[in-house]
Amino acid sequence: MSEAEFISRLRSIATDPAARGLADDAAVWEGLVLTHDMIIEGIHFLPDERPQDVAWKLVAVNLSDLAAKGAAPLGVLLGYSLGDDAWDKAFADGLDIALRRFGLLLLGGDTVRAPAGAPRSFGLTAIGRAPEKGAPSRSGARPGDQIWVTGTIGNAGVGLAMRLGEVESNETCLDAYRRPQPQLTFGQAVAPHVHAMMDISDGLIIDAGRMAEASGCRLGIMLESLPLSAALLAVRPDVVDTRMAAATAGDDYQLLFAADPAEAAAIREIAEGLDVRVTLLGHTAVGEGVMLTHKAQRVPLPERLGFMH
Amino acid sequence: MSEAEFISRLRSIATDPAARGLADDAAVWEGLVLTHDMIIEGIHFLPDERPQDVAWKLVAVNLSDLAAKGAAPLGVLLGYSLGDDAWDKAFADGLDIALRRFGLLLLGGDTVRAPAGAPRSFGLTAIGRAPEKGAPSRSGARPGDQIWVTGTIGNAGVGLAMRLGEVESNETCLDAYRRPQPQLTFGQAVAPHVHAMMDISDGLIIDAGRMAEASGCRLGIMLESLPLSAALLAVRPDVVDTRMAAATAGDDYQLLFAADPAEAAAIREIAEGLDVRVTLLGHTAVGEGVMLTHKAQRVPLPERLGFMH
Repeated sequence: MSEAEFISRLRSIATDPAARGLADDAAVWEGLVLTHDMIIEGIHFLPDERPQDVAWKLVAVNLSDLAAKGAAPLGVLLGYSLGDDAWDKAFADGLDIALRRFGLLLLGGDTVRAPAGAPRSFGLTAIGRAPEKGAPSRSGARPGDQIWVTGTIGNAGVGLAMRLGEVESNETCLDAYRRPQPQLTFGQAVAPHVHAMMDISDGLIIDAGRMAEASGCRLGIMLESLPLSAALLAVRPDVVDTRMAAATAGDDYQLLFAADPAEAAAIREIAEGLDVRVTLLGHTAVGEGVMLTHKAQRVPLPERLGFMH
Repeated sequence: MSEAEFISRLRSIATDPAARGLADDAAVWEGLVLTHDMIIEGIHFLPDERPQDVAWKLVAVNLSDLAAKGAAPLGVLLGYSLGDDAWDKAFADGLDIALRRFGLLLLGGDTVRAPAGAPRSFGLTAIGRAPEKGAPSRSGARPGDQIWVTGTIGNAGVGLAMRLGEVESNETCLDAYRRPQPQLTFGQAVAPHVHAMMDISDGLIIDAGRMAEASGCRLGIMLESLPLSAALLAVRPDVVDTRMAAATAGDDYQLLFAADPAEAAAIREIAEGLDVRVTLLGHTAVGEGVMLTHKAQRVPLPERLGFMH
């Protein structure tokens, strides 16, 4: 039973509409948006990561799921495996900062001590208030929609390469990797204007494929439109390979959304008001999967679409 | 920073009344009761435990927290670390059975793959509906209350000894260890009649001490009244040591509650109607901590009060 088979088995259990077929960023239930993400040492964070940054990331990755549903963050429950004292203290300090930053209540949780030598694993359940007009799903994109993305793509992937010493460091990319910024305010503001929305956690292409599958349409993405930061372009040449690497790197925590072209002006106005960069990436069409183009030339999908886990 | 210091640091963050000072079984927030418990291989379950039983236990230990707040179970989010395929499949089957048994929705969650060789760790967030008249806390016991406990105490501890081959096995004790039964129906029915309630997960004495501390009074427990099962007494002699071992073993998942003596008849009637055994264990008094007696003789507290984690 592969992970896909296991999730498919869980889907056969999660039959209530609130679970959204386990195919969305979060559950939407009785006016609340609920999500639970785990992070494990050696898989989701480097063993030498700063504990404050691990705490930030644990909070931010969960809040990014809330942002994708247009939810206002309310509270969290923490599952924590104890380690050495100094690490735990620094983690708690980082958690305190992250929860204050996002106005989150720490409601409860559990602390455990794992066997010696075990990688540390943490879980967070985040709860938000669903938008009054309903939380956008991944499945609502319709042929003819415009495809948008917030921020820039690929910074965190380059930041990880910098952490691994593979490329000269700069703070912008390192920060994108260490301190992802969930697009909460923008997500809440734009939610009533979109047909579908999700966050990009595993990579733009793999996540776009998930929206295409859930929505039953094709997502066409123009690689030349992919928003790359100056910080990324400071260490990578602006060639198709760089764009493909950015589109398949994970940990961006930007929002990908599909909207009727009639909403474009409203979306740009919201983004401008909140000082959030938004980029028109392409269009949806009848069909399935993701179609990549670069300056109107079809580009085949790469073998590795993103972070599979 | 010990675990106690870490939790104390978390308490300084969890200042909202909903968190109940992280000193209760669950958070009570906007009419919901929320809890999150983790279980880790080698700590909370044996590596050779049946995966169906691990799934049951993960659900049951969280529901026991809901039972202690008189909550009606609604739904869960699962954090799951993948292992080998057969194990995962059997876990999913067990989860399906447990969720159906308790009428719980699987709302969402996360699956991750831990590094090879790492102990498996699972988290569950359980959500319930708080009782209309409020969820009992651990802190409401008052001097002069009667102290009650459901079911029998110590079966799971003996069941663990049986699993480890330390004593001849019987099904009742093994089942108590493998398949704890959260006292949900009784918890909901008795909640309006109690001053304080909690579940016994780490051992009767250590948990009673927590109620004493939270309530600011002394809990007097008569060891001769401790309800022991016939299955336990089939493998242990009925001596003070056996009673002390039962009172310090963990994993009972029975309810401990304090109530005005005027409620005794109502409590017995509820218990009889639901076919749940209840036992009057002692009384609260002005003071602090737990005072143990055996046939009116003071018995000193044991060095090990229960399962510390």
